[in-house]
Amino acid sequence: MERVADANAQFYSAIENGDIDLMQAVWAEEHDAPDIVCVNPGWPLLRGRTEIMRAWSLIMANVTYIQYVLTETHIGVAGDIAMVTCEENVLTAEDDSPGFVAGGQVVTTNLFVDTEQGWRLWSHHASPVLMEEDEEGEGTPDA
Amino acid sequence: MERVADANAQFYSAIENGDIDLMQAVWAEEHDAPDIVCVNPGWPLLRGRTEIMRAWSLIMANVTYIQYVLTETHIGVAGDIAMVTCEENVLTAEDDSPGFVAGGQVVTTNLFVDTEQGWRLWSHHASPVLMEEDEEGEGTPDA
Repeated sequence: MERVADANAQFYSAIENGDIDLMQAVWAEEHDAPDIVCVNPGWPLLRGRTEIMRAWSLIMANVTYIQYVLTETHIGVAGDIAMVTCEENVLTAEDDSPGFVAGGQVVTTNLFVDTEQGWRLWSHHASPVLMEEDEEGEGTPDA
Repeated sequence: MERVADANAQFYSAIENGDIDLMQAVWAEEHDAPDIVCVNPGWPLLRGRTEIMRAWSLIMANVTYIQYVLTETHIGVAGDIAMVTCEENVLTAEDDSPGFVAGGQVVTTNLFVDTEQGWRLWSHHASPVLMEEDEEGEGTPDA
């Protein structure tokens, strides 16, 4: 669990520090996981290291300051696979930075695979919460 | 691969047919997977069978016609876990149905766990594509 939490923290540290080398290291190699995928909030699905690293390079080049505060973090492990779910609360100096929903709430599922080099990212899927809290039916009586 | 594809098809069949019993059967039991999660497009993250089934019941009660055309479907298997990624092209008669981005493009990661009863859903994360195609850097020269 702790090693998974560390791997998850490294991923956000890579974004916050604009560290593309760390970002490369965080993700699984093609032989560790069958098909790595990345969905940033509001983005289409990106597949494979080349496309995903190009996107992160582009984001890092355009964002001067970004900080993540993760809440509601849960870790579930099933064999060699771990799923981390959390809410990303994003603070950024670039409110018009491309592809990021700044100030808004984002929910995330991060999937890690246990490799010889430690837990590595297989999938990152982050999406904006667009609906009002009470629309999901919480607090309303059953129909 | 084929059994995973079948399990994935059953999930969408459950939605299309408003079949809550099938929806219950598609998802993993708590003892099969540590923490099942569901994110519908623009929704917050839902955890656990009770919350997830309540949401699907609500959706099924409000949507009279819905059809999914899946494109770009990829299946990756790592041990007892399979990840299905795809684009959901959603046709619905209810353009103002709660929580669904009708007519828009949705990208999805579905995570399945291999159980004694077959492949069962551990996580469904679907999110709206809000940016223009060319914003992701495709077709633009490297900076």
